[in-house]
Amino acid sequence: MIKKLIDNIVKKDAPIVVGLDPTLKFVPKHLLDECFENHGANLKGVSEAVWLYNKAIIDATYDLIPAVKPQIAMYEQFGIHGLEVFKRTVDYCKSKGLVVIGDIKRGDIGSTSGAYAIGHIGTVEIAGQTFCPFDEDFVTVNPYLGTDGVKPFVDICNSNDRGIFVLVKTSNPSSGEFQDRLIDGKPLYEHVAEKVMEWGSASMEGNYSNVGAVVGATYPEQGEILRKKMPNTFILVPGYGAQGGKGADLVHFFNSDGLGAIINSSRGIIAAYQNEKYASFGEKNFADASRQAVIDMREDIRSALK
Amino acid sequence: MIKKLIDNIVKKDAPIVVGLDPTLKFVPKHLLDECFENHGANLKGVSEAVWLYNKAIIDATYDLIPAVKPQIAMYEQFGIHGLEVFKRTVDYCKSKGLVVIGDIKRGDIGSTSGAYAIGHIGTVEIAGQTFCPFDEDFVTVNPYLGTDGVKPFVDICNSNDRGIFVLVKTSNPSSGEFQDRLIDGKPLYEHVAEKVMEWGSASMEGNYSNVGAVVGATYPEQGEILRKKMPNTFILVPGYGAQGGKGADLVHFFNSDGLGAIINSSRGIIAAYQNEKYASFGEKNFADASRQAVIDMREDIRSALK
Repeated sequence: MIKKLIDNIVKKDAPIVVGLDPTLKFVPKHLLDECFENHGANLKGVSEAVWLYNKAIIDATYDLIPAVKPQIAMYEQFGIHGLEVFKRTVDYCKSKGLVVIGDIKRGDIGSTSGAYAIGHIGTVEIAGQTFCPFDEDFVTVNPYLGTDGVKPFVDICNSNDRGIFVLVKTSNPSSGEFQDRLIDGKPLYEHVAEKVMEWGSASMEGNYSNVGAVVGATYPEQGEILRKKMPNTFILVPGYGAQGGKGADLVHFFNSDGLGAIINSSRGIIAAYQNEKYASFGEKNFADASRQAVIDMREDIRSALK
Repeated sequence: MIKKLIDNIVKKDAPIVVGLDPTLKFVPKHLLDECFENHGANLKGVSEAVWLYNKAIIDATYDLIPAVKPQIAMYEQFGIHGLEVFKRTVDYCKSKGLVVIGDIKRGDIGSTSGAYAIGHIGTVEIAGQTFCPFDEDFVTVNPYLGTDGVKPFVDICNSNDRGIFVLVKTSNPSSGEFQDRLIDGKPLYEHVAEKVMEWGSASMEGNYSNVGAVVGATYPEQGEILRKKMPNTFILVPGYGAQGGKGADLVHFFNSDGLGAIINSSRGIIAAYQNEKYASFGEKNFADASRQAVIDMREDIRSALK
């Protein structure tokens, strides 16, 4: 699956991914009003408004981008109806040719991680028929439980042509609390990075592995170190834009082949219309604002990579 | 919420929790046949069979136990239909007076953890009405992202009378890969334990905090150390039974007040009918086998604690 992601990135000449992380305060009022009228002012109504919001943004940007990264928490917060819209969003994005990275950050003991892997990137066999419950292309995985919590995901990467990104150094302010602590002279995140390479060595497609890493844009120095340490690991880089990362900071997340990283922006794209820079689009034209924000982000990254 | 859990434990004289972790191979054939006939041989049919399976086990054991711990992965593996049954299971258990610990092991950057916290132990306000999406009493939380990934859960413990159990030392074979690594002379799990106490100090109810810890039954020596280190932290102990933990190993997870820990068994209870020891019940009487397994587990723990 990493090959498909790379092909999409090369085709669109844009190593960027749009984070579909709809919080209620981003969803334009006219969509909420419409869905409250049609479905009620309840979790169903909110979820359907999120769907209209997502669909408009996807329709306005899919030709520019290789991939999307829906954050499942933003759907799970609305319960079952929210998760129905998560699934609908995954399916719709795939129908538009986009690679879908489910940002689920799951990780548990072996048998339980196996169930998550089945649910998100695997299949269930029932009476001779095969079902794909959520059917993302990639998912993010939490490494705290070690190899037997990650292995079931890696196994499915191989058997089912999928991929994962394992959390190595996350973008949030407190990520250093545990991840930066030194063990035998090296931060924990480097030890995790070594395991990511080990796990990924059994799932190579060309120069890159289906087992990637998450390293936050907000930590460019660590990104540079990790880039060199993991030459065959694709890096998913959250934290661009609203969280503080800038294009110029991100050069060292890439390999000399111009590949090896994909930069995520969520709020910066999907809530662009709330940003002063794009305010002239107006709330009703939120999707056009998102399109312009994608174009500007792409330009920022392209300039930095030149 | 820790007070309610303790009250339930004292009332039932049983510091045990039943893990409702239904995998397909545990669900008796007659339930699958019935649900395939009524709902189709598909993800809906499987999920409805899981519901009948859960309901029978809950009905057969609820008077003996203080709490249940549904593992959401086992429902998520069947997609939306599975999650509908997760929600139905949560609601049904609460209607039976059980404390529900959602074993979700979520954890992300602050805003995203906030969404998970809302979805599982919080509320959503829509047009002046309040909705509780999944509505568990406790959830499990992964600490890899540090304070700002845990804080949103703690905030809701306080505002909404709920609780969490943070992963400290997990029960699986590879948990030591990162969790046991020494940082300043102490294993990572002890550093996490210190943070758990810090996070929990703002959410005390009597002698115990609403912020508990997960420590695996399979690591009794570490359990003893962590018990002493965290006197006011309730410990959720998975790994009893099928994963290898025995009652006698678990004494040191408890404080001298006889409290401070709750022992989980999943497979050992819900799939008891598949165990040679309970085979005489027969597959059709799987719930009676589960009841007997609860009684035996309770006796094993009571004897150990004497």
